[in-house]
Amino acid sequence: MSPNLNLDWLISVDDHILEPPNVWVDRVPAKDRDRAPHMETRDGIEGWVYDGKHYPSSGLSAVAGKSREEFSPKPLPYSEMRPGCYDPKARLEDMDRAGILASACFPTITRFCGQLFMEASDREFGLVCLKAYNDWLIDEWCATAPGRYIPLVLFPMWDTKLAVEELERCAAKGATSFLFSENPSKLGLPTIHDKDGYWDPVMKVANDLEMVVSMHVGSSSEVPQIAPDSPFMANLTWGAIRTSGAMLSWIFSGMFQKYPKLKIALSEGEIGWIPYFLERAEDVLDKQKHWVSKGQKFMDHGANSGVDLFTLDIRQTFRDHVFGCFIHDEHGIASLDEIGENNVMCETDYPHSDSTWPECIGSVRKQIAHLPEETQYKLLRGNAERLYRFTPAEPPVLATA
Amino acid sequence: MSPNLNLDWLISVDDHILEPPNVWVDRVPAKDRDRAPHMETRDGIEGWVYDGKHYPSSGLSAVAGKSREEFSPKPLPYSEMRPGCYDPKARLEDMDRAGILASACFPTITRFCGQLFMEASDREFGLVCLKAYNDWLIDEWCATAPGRYIPLVLFPMWDTKLAVEELERCAAKGATSFLFSENPSKLGLPTIHDKDGYWDPVMKVANDLEMVVSMHVGSSSEVPQIAPDSPFMANLTWGAIRTSGAMLSWIFSGMFQKYPKLKIALSEGEIGWIPYFLERAEDVLDKQKHWVSKGQKFMDHGANSGVDLFTLDIRQTFRDHVFGCFIHDEHGIASLDEIGENNVMCETDYPHSDSTWPECIGSVRKQIAHLPEETQYKLLRGNAERLYRFTPAEPPVLATA
Repeated sequence: MSPNLNLDWLISVDDHILEPPNVWVDRVPAKDRDRAPHMETRDGIEGWVYDGKHYPSSGLSAVAGKSREEFSPKPLPYSEMRPGCYDPKARLEDMDRAGILASACFPTITRFCGQLFMEASDREFGLVCLKAYNDWLIDEWCATAPGRYIPLVLFPMWDTKLAVEELERCAAKGATSFLFSENPSKLGLPTIHDKDGYWDPVMKVANDLEMVVSMHVGSSSEVPQIAPDSPFMANLTWGAIRTSGAMLSWIFSGMFQKYPKLKIALSEGEIGWIPYFLERAEDVLDKQKHWVSKGQKFMDHGANSGVDLFTLDIRQTFRDHVFGCFIHDEHGIASLDEIGENNVMCETDYPHSDSTWPECIGSVRKQIAHLPEETQYKLLRGNAERLYRFTPAEPPVLATA
Repeated sequence: MSPNLNLDWLISVDDHILEPPNVWVDRVPAKDRDRAPHMETRDGIEGWVYDGKHYPSSGLSAVAGKSREEFSPKPLPYSEMRPGCYDPKARLEDMDRAGILASACFPTITRFCGQLFMEASDREFGLVCLKAYNDWLIDEWCATAPGRYIPLVLFPMWDTKLAVEELERCAAKGATSFLFSENPSKLGLPTIHDKDGYWDPVMKVANDLEMVVSMHVGSSSEVPQIAPDSPFMANLTWGAIRTSGAMLSWIFSGMFQKYPKLKIALSEGEIGWIPYFLERAEDVLDKQKHWVSKGQKFMDHGANSGVDLFTLDIRQTFRDHVFGCFIHDEHGIASLDEIGENNVMCETDYPHSDSTWPECIGSVRKQIAHLPEETQYKLLRGNAERLYRFTPAEPPVLATA
């Protein structure tokens, strides 16, 4: 056993930024300030204004410090949020308190992969705003504390030439991961199976620059509904079907064979469903590959993919390319051998309603305490450091209570 | 340990009947023979004819005896099927060979819950045909060998008054389970969450007569598609999301609180995904019940259900009411403690392409060999006997090779 492994800190690969009100107005030309995302109070409700629409912040996006009894989806003004939601310095205090050594944060008002700017009436200006977010994220949020924040950048999904330019620009500034959709078809975009190879330029640059494709659950802009009137709690519980669909899409897509350095992170997807779907994929492949590979004449749904079904190794493809992420998933941890200890990272989801804050390090440690220390270290931070090519700061020395 | 537990035989709660050509023509009035489901060869392809449509049998529905290399969805005439597909006596030989002591069979041409008759232009005649199937199933297929077949009956889903009559009629003839849809909304029917209580008469009679609600994966008439062009193999692997959605719908529906003797079987849904979704349901309930129970004003999707979120015990509800079914699911068996050894039954899926035939008993035994003999017995047959209130025949004495 390696001596002196520090298990007191974790790297969270899924937290959330409530963008400070000045992100865009400070960075766009003066003439554009009014049309850049900015805050306005309308009918007494504070919200972001962009492209003619008003977006209040959901209280469920900023519950840090609140008890479960206080959770509410009602609009919440920034003044009533914990400063760690939007202030990178205040966030550090909250991270220190919870054992979070470093954090990869997803945006809020832009949505999980920048849908706000894609759906805007003026995409050219949308791109200006998107770049402003990336610059702010790297130059301000992350630069506040080197080694404490991992940048996850946006790119213009609507134009892959511009996308490549923006990804190269961000990579040059140190970004090692970008935000993508778990299901681009739900956003009106071609899927990763597109016959014309719509995403090829993006995935090629991701491969060449070794940028991780980070896909947050819900980045398809959709809460799945079991049936039109199924209980909300059932739909909410069902959420990971989106992530499982994304994982299977990628594994059978042929993308990993085409771009062998490509890696994907299934952010906030949890992991306990992974062993079943990997085993099932192997079973389906084993039993059905012969007739499926012969053609599509009798298939009602879907098509055979680009991947060669006779050489596809489901487990190896998963191990080489896919990373699962967990907040609280005892079944997933109990099944770690089936998933692979090199393919799992932890999350704290600060400041969302699934967050374990301020008990983050304790919550993860409790789930993984039975594992060897080296494995614990991988789940806590080692895998994230490797995947995101990230060197964290030395853990801060905290004043003891 | 109980001595002399016979672990050489299993009860399969999911097999399939390819209906013999004479099921309906032998049972409807002479004047109706031409419009009852019957076989016709059109353009050289044999198929069932009903209500003006021609339905060839898919080769994938009758692969028993074929190697995986021979699997094909091409239309297959009955003459090229193994007789066990449609002949209850020939089926017995195939069951004996594979260690199947008893079998619960789903219909084929009617679809998994009788959609054929519901969608027909003449539902009155559809009901005549539906009853003919039930009578044939009980009086002929099952009566061929008492204690070897468990009847799963159809009922008219389009009229709950007629439904109750048919269920009572079948129960009087010995049926202990009926076929239902994993997602009635996909069939154009009200869901189990219907505010007007559409399904209450059916579930009340199911409760009072202790008839199991058997829901086969695919009984929503739908193969789920991750995206419009996602690989067929990915969609096929993803299939159990339908079953997971059904399980969550039922657990949060309040049905089990209203009808405490109601039990559901998740046929051909496999089980390895169950632990994750149960744990996730507990987590979601724990974290979100406070605000969700306060109302629906800020919810975009779904509604709070009839169940009291503050008294709902997810695990207990599952253990008291839900049965998972597996063909090949090593992860599920490895997680049996989390699911519950009283809530799992085995299947052989004869003669479909997921079937393990003729290695059925060996395949199940291999998966469960590490478990105590009492547990093995429960999975092999004990749970099925209890759930379906079924007393199997004594195992046949086979001539040794």
